[in-house]
Amino acid sequence: MPTTPYDAPDATAGEPPVSWLDLAPDDPFGVATLPYGVFSAPGREAPRVGVRIGPWVLDAAAAAERAGMESGAVWAADRLNPFLGQGPHAWAAAREWLTTVLTDASYRDAVLPHLVPLAEVTTHLPIRVADYVDFFAAEHHARNAADIFRPGVGLSPNWKHLPVGYHGRAGTVVVSGTDVVRPTGQRGPAQAGGSPTFGPSERLDVETELGFVLGGATAQGSRVAVGEAADHLFGVVLLNDWSARDLQAWEAQPLGPFLGKSFATSVSAWVTPMSALAHARVPVPGQDPRPLPYLLDGAPAPTTIGLSLELRVNDRLVTRPHASDLYWSPEQLVAHLTVGGASVRDGDLLGSGTVSGATRDSLGCLLELTHGGRDAVVLDDGSTRTWLEDGDVVTMTAVAPGPGGGRVGVAEVRGRVVPAR
Amino acid sequence: MPTTPYDAPDATAGEPPVSWLDLAPDDPFGVATLPYGVFSAPGREAPRVGVRIGPWVLDAAAAAERAGMESGAVWAADRLNPFLGQGPHAWAAAREWLTTVLTDASYRDAVLPHLVPLAEVTTHLPIRVADYVDFFAAEHHARNAADIFRPGVGLSPNWKHLPVGYHGRAGTVVVSGTDVVRPTGQRGPAQAGGSPTFGPSERLDVETELGFVLGGATAQGSRVAVGEAADHLFGVVLLNDWSARDLQAWEAQPLGPFLGKSFATSVSAWVTPMSALAHARVPVPGQDPRPLPYLLDGAPAPTTIGLSLELRVNDRLVTRPHASDLYWSPEQLVAHLTVGGASVRDGDLLGSGTVSGATRDSLGCLLELTHGGRDAVVLDDGSTRTWLEDGDVVTMTAVAPGPGGGRVGVAEVRGRVVPAR
Repeated sequence: MPTTPYDAPDATAGEPPVSWLDLAPDDPFGVATLPYGVFSAPGREAPRVGVRIGPWVLDAAAAAERAGMESGAVWAADRLNPFLGQGPHAWAAAREWLTTVLTDASYRDAVLPHLVPLAEVTTHLPIRVADYVDFFAAEHHARNAADIFRPGVGLSPNWKHLPVGYHGRAGTVVVSGTDVVRPTGQRGPAQAGGSPTFGPSERLDVETELGFVLGGATAQGSRVAVGEAADHLFGVVLLNDWSARDLQAWEAQPLGPFLGKSFATSVSAWVTPMSALAHARVPVPGQDPRPLPYLLDGAPAPTTIGLSLELRVNDRLVTRPHASDLYWSPEQLVAHLTVGGASVRDGDLLGSGTVSGATRDSLGCLLELTHGGRDAVVLDDGSTRTWLEDGDVVTMTAVAPGPGGGRVGVAEVRGRVVPAR
Repeated sequence: MPTTPYDAPDATAGEPPVSWLDLAPDDPFGVATLPYGVFSAPGREAPRVGVRIGPWVLDAAAAAERAGMESGAVWAADRLNPFLGQGPHAWAAAREWLTTVLTDASYRDAVLPHLVPLAEVTTHLPIRVADYVDFFAAEHHARNAADIFRPGVGLSPNWKHLPVGYHGRAGTVVVSGTDVVRPTGQRGPAQAGGSPTFGPSERLDVETELGFVLGGATAQGSRVAVGEAADHLFGVVLLNDWSARDLQAWEAQPLGPFLGKSFATSVSAWVTPMSALAHARVPVPGQDPRPLPYLLDGAPAPTTIGLSLELRVNDRLVTRPHASDLYWSPEQLVAHLTVGGASVRDGDLLGSGTVSGATRDSLGCLLELTHGGRDAVVLDDGSTRTWLEDGDVVTMTAVAPGPGGGRVGVAEVRGRVVPAR
């Protein structure tokens, strides 16, 4: 029995498992990935948990019932939260079972009736978000944002000692595919002492982030050590932290971002398990000064995830951030979040903060790419953007190395900007 | 039929209703108050909605069933959220029914079996908190906090143009009576460029706040005008925004408060309906410069609530803040929160921010009372406090004028500090 989801068999084996399904060998949603989501489909009207495999979605609870897997009843729920609440042993056992029934051809007849073409499903928000925390874990982004928002101030003195973060609005997290209404609000005065103006945001931006989905709820007043964090890190989504830079810049002193990021936060419809990304863990860029012991003890050296991200506007490539540029590991984020006694709830969502690297083509948001709106970005069809326009469709995708030279994907997050009301 | 809870009959009548129960005439939890909570008791083990009346609690769903009030079935829930979801007409109808059965002696025999002595009940967190937002709505507190945390900077330039606020952690909101574990975390270096230290907070504080409980969920992308906000403002609790000032000061740049306020936030066990406080509304201190139209239009002049608060440590009076010192009205908080398209969810909780006035005896937190820890506070038994000590019991209470010279209370919030783990 594996002790954590990271120990699942497929995560340490050298050879990738092979499905009896006819899948392209480089499909980032092959049997080494198996992300969970919530879907409905014709004849399956009630939203339920599904597992994405190639161009299909497995109706997980139905297949589990057919195959006599009792604990699969939790997949009949309309959110992943009950499954998240079962904790790491259940996650590992479920993944092992899914891998078995999708690779052992003797399960073929039992499984086939419960596969639905991906093109026929409607996806729903996979988790009921408990608390949403957004971190600020990429050094290049933190430095660039400081240079633009607070010239001359530089990286805040705490930044290399703790993962800086803040709480976002859980109630406005939406699933990929949901339209995003351009927000309206107060934009700061053009000069100090002037009056703010009111209207639709004129500086609408994206932030390319990873989102970590937590489970295995803990008690308030206790803490999760960095070495125990894997037991609470269920999986990863892509997260577009839509940001109205003009609203944000005016409102954020002294208590931080608020409405400039509270109108919508988009996440992937499918949650890729952390165990599927075990092959893709890479050391963080290096933590100097050495963090305090609670951010290190009982754990191997901190690692991030070698996920290559792509951000597109209207299907034109804008930038290619890489999650290897994250300074803090996901396990450190969990340990820090709980060190003061904050509980973990099933469905907590942790954003990494914008993933940005040292090079211009790896910056994760327009704020940085345009240097605060100064320089337009030229897309590969010759069109330009400083900030997002109404009608723009923003898409983020991600792949990482999988076992045996394969690929593991994190599902796209997509959203279209619609005009302010 | 009243159109909003503020129009409920008792809120505009000159004479207070009189109950057939034997209540002290100045009881702040008389028939003019009728706060809702969630309780269990011997023989009533499943948590359910109750209504506090003098020294009793009405088992609301049971009484409603006995009296043939069908919509009372929603009170069988273990949180107020389903009732919050019914919206203002249902809230007003429920309050009218409760007032009737507690003042018309013909209901006495039907109601009496469903009254439980307050001393016998266990109270539970009355709402499943959706999103928790903490505002910063008292000018004196904002100025004092700026002077202490950011000397020389003064009130931020946005402060008089919008209600500054941020998201807090919903998952660590606890009901009055819950012990609070002293949080551990990083405390900033003694001098710039030094290393942080790690350990239990040495500057544990309280913040005396009102908490507004919202209902009547709205769609994402829409907004609630200030004149419609009353339809979503269900009631008021007292809120102790426990704050670890040393952790807060170090972590909060540039994204605002985080773990220094994420270990516990305590709220009253009983939610006093906004309609019970209609008599107590008083004009805000005056808004200059005039706010943008979205913070004013369609609404009468902004008012706050004339609630007199008291903060005690170990039953010794520390300070008497007054909610008439709040600069922004609760309706303006709701209008601002939603102006960018953020939805309201049933169970959203809005903190007012620390209620502080111009005089020393009306400051709402130790940070201000001690000027950042410089001057100890002397309690009326001669003991002193700079910051909270382990074992300290903190209590906040509040009363406002009620109809006919009576009093309307907001239930106490109490919590004891227990040592760091």
